[in-house]
Amino acid sequence: MTGNEQRARIPEPTLRRLPWYLAFVKLLKGEGETYVSSTQIAKEISVDPSQVSKDLSFVNLAGKTRVGYEIGSLISVLEDFLGFSKRHKAVLFGVGSLGAALLQDSGLKQYGLEIIAGFDIRPELDGTQVNDIPVYLNGDFPHLHARHQATIGVITVPVDQAQAVADLLVSEGVRALWNFTPFRIRVPEGVVVQNTSIYAHLAVMFNRLSLLDGE
Amino acid sequence: MTGNEQRARIPEPTLRRLPWYLAFVKLLKGEGETYVSSTQIAKEISVDPSQVSKDLSFVNLAGKTRVGYEIGSLISVLEDFLGFSKRHKAVLFGVGSLGAALLQDSGLKQYGLEIIAGFDIRPELDGTQVNDIPVYLNGDFPHLHARHQATIGVITVPVDQAQAVADLLVSEGVRALWNFTPFRIRVPEGVVVQNTSIYAHLAVMFNRLSLLDGE
Repeated sequence: MTGNEQRARIPEPTLRRLPWYLAFVKLLKGEGETYVSSTQIAKEISVDPSQVSKDLSFVNLAGKTRVGYEIGSLISVLEDFLGFSKRHKAVLFGVGSLGAALLQDSGLKQYGLEIIAGFDIRPELDGTQVNDIPVYLNGDFPHLHARHQATIGVITVPVDQAQAVADLLVSEGVRALWNFTPFRIRVPEGVVVQNTSIYAHLAVMFNRLSLLDGE
Repeated sequence: MTGNEQRARIPEPTLRRLPWYLAFVKLLKGEGETYVSSTQIAKEISVDPSQVSKDLSFVNLAGKTRVGYEIGSLISVLEDFLGFSKRHKAVLFGVGSLGAALLQDSGLKQYGLEIIAGFDIRPELDGTQVNDIPVYLNGDFPHLHARHQATIGVITVPVDQAQAVADLLVSEGVRALWNFTPFRIRVPEGVVVQNTSIYAHLAVMFNRLSLLDGE
């Protein structure tokens, strides 16, 4: 069985919980701890201990002892497993407020996403830089992409441009789209789409708040 | 039945889909359209038509005719329903790269979140402004909050400060926390937590990409 086949069977909820475990054990490391048990993780994260063990069973961890996992190895194994230690080249379309914000977020690089260029349709942005990342016109993407071959396209354009930008990215061979717009883009089979609409999260939070008010 | 009780029963997946419908019908409006059917929305969003009808049945919509929903009313009803047309006052803790990015994102205000102040522990940020939003020291929060009464706290601090900031916000009576850190904060009953870890979404996207590579 290859590493890829192993990863294939991981449920999305597990993939979403593993970064929480990683964040917590990195915190422990910072406090000078050297070992952590799944019970300790479970307690801190408010997840069932058996769930933590199950989640961690997807990850290739060297024999766990009675004192638990060795924190240093757990961190590096989790980072490798989650793809955070690999360098994924990305381009970003739509250097508006959210797009420029993401170009400035150094956290993305730490988690394995390296945005190598921004693109926009506004001529006044052409040739500028945000956080040392160059910004070009959308139309320049094909010939720049031929040289730099990004695998991921980050989409932060206005809703009415989302599909056209997705089509452009896919036509040039970009295989994964990280869609921050509230628009449901359509892609051919074999292209990965990750939707992250922070405004949809706002709707959920507002609704729960209104329930508190109603009590 | 009050509006709040009606909202109480809405499943989270519906709350997450409604903003997609909203984005699409706003797009149609921009193109000069005046009516839209649930079938048309379903086709565009790649959701089952019966699901769209069911989702929209949670929203108080005036009688739908054979031509479908009147777009103008649908937009305003959805915006009201999702809380986007209300003004929710918020404070943001952690004016680092992601925090500053959110302060600069004018989209949040359009969706009903008005960040009135940023807070940080770094003295050099005290008294500065980002996008005309003032930045203060964490310690100044209690007396400023007494005057301004934000209902939502946005958390973009480093992982090792997340719990302390959550505790501070809750102790001052803030009732909803929007947590962008990968740390699982703990709060007392009656406080809403919305986790939005964009890095967890990265993990899911990287995993799916690695499956493509494995094929």
